Amino acid sequence: MKETIAFVGLGNMGAPMARNLAARGFTVRAYDQRMEAREALAAATDATAVASVAEAADGASVLVTMLPDNDHVKSVVIDEGAEALPARSLVIDMSSISPGVARDVHAGLADRGIAFVDAPVSGGTVGAQGGTLTIMAGGEADAFARAKPVLEGMGTTIVHAGGPGMGQVFKLCNQIIVVGNLTAIAEALTLCRAGGGDMERLLEALGGGAAGSWMLQNLAPRMVAGEDDVGFPIDLQLKDLRLVGEAAHAMGVPLPSTSLITALYLSARAHGEGGNGNQAIRKVYDRLADQAPDAKTG
Amino acid sequence: MKETIAFVGLGNMGAPMARNLAARGFTVRAYDQRMEAREALAAATDATAVASVAEAADGASVLVTMLPDNDHVKSVVIDEGAEALPARSLVIDMSSISPGVARDVHAGLADRGIAFVDAPVSGGTVGAQGGTLTIMAGGEADAFARAKPVLEGMGTTIVHAGGPGMGQVFKLCNQIIVVGNLTAIAEALTLCRAGGGDMERLLEALGGGAAGSWMLQNLAPRMVAGEDDVGFPIDLQLKDLRLVGEAAHAMGVPLPSTSLITALYLSARAHGEGGNGNQAIRKVYDRLADQAPDAKTG
Amino acid sequence: MKETIAFVGLGNMGAPMARNLAARGFTVRAYDQRMEAREALAAATDATAVASVAEAADGASVLVTMLPDNDHVKSVVIDEGAEALPARSLVIDMSSISPGVARDVHAGLADRGIAFVDAPVSGGTVGAQGGTLTIMAGGEADAFARAKPVLEGMGTTIVHAGGPGMGQVFKLCNQIIVVGNLTAIAEALTLCRAGGGDMERLLEALGGGAAGSWMLQNLAPRMVAGEDDVGFPIDLQLKDLRLVGEAAHAMGVPLPSTSLITALYLSARAHGEGGNGNQAIRKVYDRLADQAPDAKTG
Amino acid sequence: MKETIAFVGLGNMGAPMARNLAARGFTVRAYDQRMEAREALAAATDATAVASVAEAADGASVLVTMLPDNDHVKSVVIDEGAEALPARSLVIDMSSISPGVARDVHAGLADRGIAFVDAPVSGGTVGAQGGTLTIMAGGEADAFARAKPVLEGMGTTIVHAGGPGMGQVFKLCNQIIVVGNLTAIAEALTLCRAGGGDMERLLEALGGGAAGSWMLQNLAPRMVAGEDDVGFPIDLQLKDLRLVGEAAHAMGVPLPSTSLITALYLSARAHGEGGNGNQAIRKVYDRLADQAPDAKTG
Repeated sequence: MKETIAFVGLGNMGAPMARNLAARGFTVRAYDQRMEAREALAAATDATAVASVAEAADGASVLVTMLPDNDHVKSVVIDEGAEALPARSLVIDMSSISPGVARDVHAGLADRGIAFVDAPVSGGTVGAQGGTLTIMAGGEADAFARAKPVLEGMGTTIVHAGGPGMGQVFKLCNQIIVVGNLTAIAEALTLCRAGGGDMERLLEALGGGAAGSWMLQNLAPRMVAGEDDVGFPIDLQLKDLRLVGEAAHAMGVPLPSTSLITALYLSARAHGEGGNGNQAIRKVYDRLADQAPDAKTG
Repeated sequence: MKETIAFVGLGNMGAPMARNLAARGFTVRAYDQRMEAREALAAATDATAVASVAEAADGASVLVTMLPDNDHVKSVVIDEGAEALPARSLVIDMSSISPGVARDVHAGLADRGIAFVDAPVSGGTVGAQGGTLTIMAGGEADAFARAKPVLEGMGTTIVHAGGPGMGQVFKLCNQIIVVGNLTAIAEALTLCRAGGGDMERLLEALGGGAAGSWMLQNLAPRMVAGEDDVGFPIDLQLKDLRLVGEAAHAMGVPLPSTSLITALYLSARAHGEGGNGNQAIRKVYDRLADQAPDAKTG
Repeated sequence: MKETIAFVGLGNMGAPMARNLAARGFTVRAYDQRMEAREALAAATDATAVASVAEAADGASVLVTMLPDNDHVKSVVIDEGAEALPARSLVIDMSSISPGVARDVHAGLADRGIAFVDAPVSGGTVGAQGGTLTIMAGGEADAFARAKPVLEGMGTTIVHAGGPGMGQVFKLCNQIIVVGNLTAIAEALTLCRAGGGDMERLLEALGGGAAGSWMLQNLAPRMVAGEDDVGFPIDLQLKDLRLVGEAAHAMGVPLPSTSLITALYLSARAHGEGGNGNQAIRKVYDRLADQAPDAKTG
Repeated sequence: MKETIAFVGLGNMGAPMARNLAARGFTVRAYDQRMEAREALAAATDATAVASVAEAADGASVLVTMLPDNDHVKSVVIDEGAEALPARSLVIDMSSISPGVARDVHAGLADRGIAFVDAPVSGGTVGAQGGTLTIMAGGEADAFARAKPVLEGMGTTIVHAGGPGMGQVFKLCNQIIVVGNLTAIAEALTLCRAGGGDMERLLEALGGGAAGSWMLQNLAPRMVAGEDDVGFPIDLQLKDLRLVGEAAHAMGVPLPSTSLITALYLSARAHGEGGNGNQAIRKVYDRLADQAPDAKTG
């Protein structure tokens, strides 16, 4: 028989993830502070809507959380969930939070005999809906082994990143590369345009060589076409970049390029691009360079 | 009958490129200021060694140049070659130089009725030797059409980037993305290591997703393994980044991230990595972050 | 009769500040979680050592706090102090914390009828000991007026920065300029040395002109002389830069240069300079540029 | 009797400098490629207008040049002046050019027995008109001694920076600090405004402390007031920053912060601020941060 899962956090990502778990035969007891969110899930699936974290956790063997930020996870998992969860249960936090907070939560649960896996995801709402997320999981080997069947109900690529907190570290590393590559592409397109070049032809020319990447293939054409309203939103990317900054301070590790790029993303948000996809970072370059009265091609 | 080609510049790139042209039936008259370079080529191929640019150009219908920098191209093409070349001949400059200088050379030759194509390459010495270079060519449509059979003797991907100078612009755009992506990968690996993570596992985990790229596939493993002595050298990358900087000033286009990354590449060279491949940029991060007495994982 | 002041936080800054208040006739009830700190103060001054925040606050008309970071202030002021303070009392927080947290604390106290002034300082331990601090105070006009006589017991320049939180904003602005100017001086010295120049002569030459500043006058000579073990420590500067980063995210304001400089300060700390003064940032440049085998003067 | 001076380059700076020399009793033979510039000078002073560099240099014991850039100096001094100057004459180049080019010119003149001093200035058109320039001079001790009375005809602070090229190095160091400090001030003002603060009060509060500087005193109030159309223009600052970039490449010295700031100055120029003073860099921050629909004070 499959486990009984308490699922907390039914937003754009959490709701379809909980639905997929229910569809695969898990007994799901779902909670979100917005009543309409939990009722919508219960109406559409076999999941049961419950009225509190404690009610969800009571009797569940696994608590899965998909929450916005550090404080929500600490509050839901430690302050509310841990009391109600039975001994030897497992918490899987799939939120993107600080590696340090993930380790604190792990330690807090370990004191009570509850196992913990931090398991942030990539793949966005498309991956959440299709159950095709990539999941980067940190935790002890046995906790990971126990979490794996649950994670397989939500994603297709499940990576054991390492010990507690390491799933979050991998997630941040992923974001560092994503924004670094995208910003580089935006700067290349900016130089191309300033030089009078055809940006689409540039992408064609570079796609097959050393500059080639998933981003060049998938998001660069959107940059050129101005298709900004799809994809992983800049607001969420900024949250992850804030976590990178916090981790850099906490670990004492200098990331000069990512720090600068974070400022450029803040500029994008300041200009109302927060709801647009990552590719909208290109517009910051338009603002930096445009309307040049004395620009010369040279 | 194939054209007679004057080929000037027989360095690590130029020598195998000239050899490939000779092997494909072009009549090649080769010059390099180092006598041993031109004699080595003549000994190994059907190419003829000549004693000056003028002698090479005299009677040739195409002049191909593969030279270190702006000044060499101006001097060889305008000061020496243009006098000796017949009317209606064609100059193909395959050096990496400033877009603005390429356009100046184009204009100088046009005054004398000589066509011009700027055709910088990517693919390195491996591509030069195997005749598999990617060539980004700028020039009028008919000049490009005329250059194409010659370029096909040296490369497999021949792109018409646009008008005069645009080959150089595309080349610089390529380098912007290469160093931006590599630096982002280096920062991700730095955070991974500082957080106690396994860098090889990180590359495995990220390779198939949005962070995936040719660089992640090919150079990131070398970063992790410390295989620094292969690939496109940092010294040459810095020359291209200097050209990017010059173009940014000339075109009036701000490239904040590439400007910062150029400083990091200068740091790599300052520490003796100039002869190592691009992936050695990772070592700058070791120097920025290492030996941290109070680093915490957090 | 002068007010009774509860003083919480007797570190390197707080202890001499409390001593100065006692010396000027205020009744001081001092608390620090380290018993030896409060006893040392009581032994050396007229201040009374008490055993808890609540005991200090009970009956005091003013609570002054000088604490390490956001969480300490929230905990001491809101969780502990607010309960014990009488109605119409005043809290003066002299810690450097987030403007947003200062505003939250202000709002939390306002709910209970307690006035609040955020009053971070500059001037370091020398200013704290001599009672010559510069104090940047944020708060309503009447709260500021009431706080002023107390603040004058600790500093000589008392600025009303604006409403609640604005003292903290001014403090962060001060730090942005300090690190920006110092980093610029470090880069100038780096270029000077790389060019074979005499750094002392450079400081002399520039001191009287447009590049002149307090930093050039006071810290630049220490950079040149390698006198790194005095002054405001890099560890504390990094704390303030972390607050700048948090404020930049919270306010949505891009600070590209300060973001980059923060990464350079992290590098300084990673190399063991955390306990040294700000001027030690120069050493990061030595690490970036030194041992250059192929450096040329040019 | 005072020396006969050939003066080449009668722009906004050169014209008043030549006038001051004539007014102090030097025999001045002035040339500029614009005939109206040399005739205007001759009409207003005792200087004689001549028709070529060679005519100016012929019989002069000192050649003073004040020219826009590297190529002009090489051309005027080496290609034209050196032929016409008598043996044992002295060239004083007061242009701002690359340290490496200054050294090349020094070497080229030394071959012909002509002494050389590179002597760039600060103080702007106000200093040129009033004869109150700061002059940073590089050259051998005897060349500097010989140049000094001439330099004292144009400036009040004459610094012997070091050997050949070192005047230029000092000038670039000055500009690094100027733009670094100004950019930091711009970021501080940006944070202040985003936080709802009063920028004038900020300047007052910070002026007397560790953040104090000539720039804070003189240009920061112009930033706040939007008085952008006075002072050293961004176009000229960008020329100097281009020279910094070239020197950084040539000397192999990484200047990450100045590199980034150069990109921000390019952005200012791209938006039409090129003719405005340095303080207009603040406007780039308005463009990065403004119109923030979701900015929060926090």
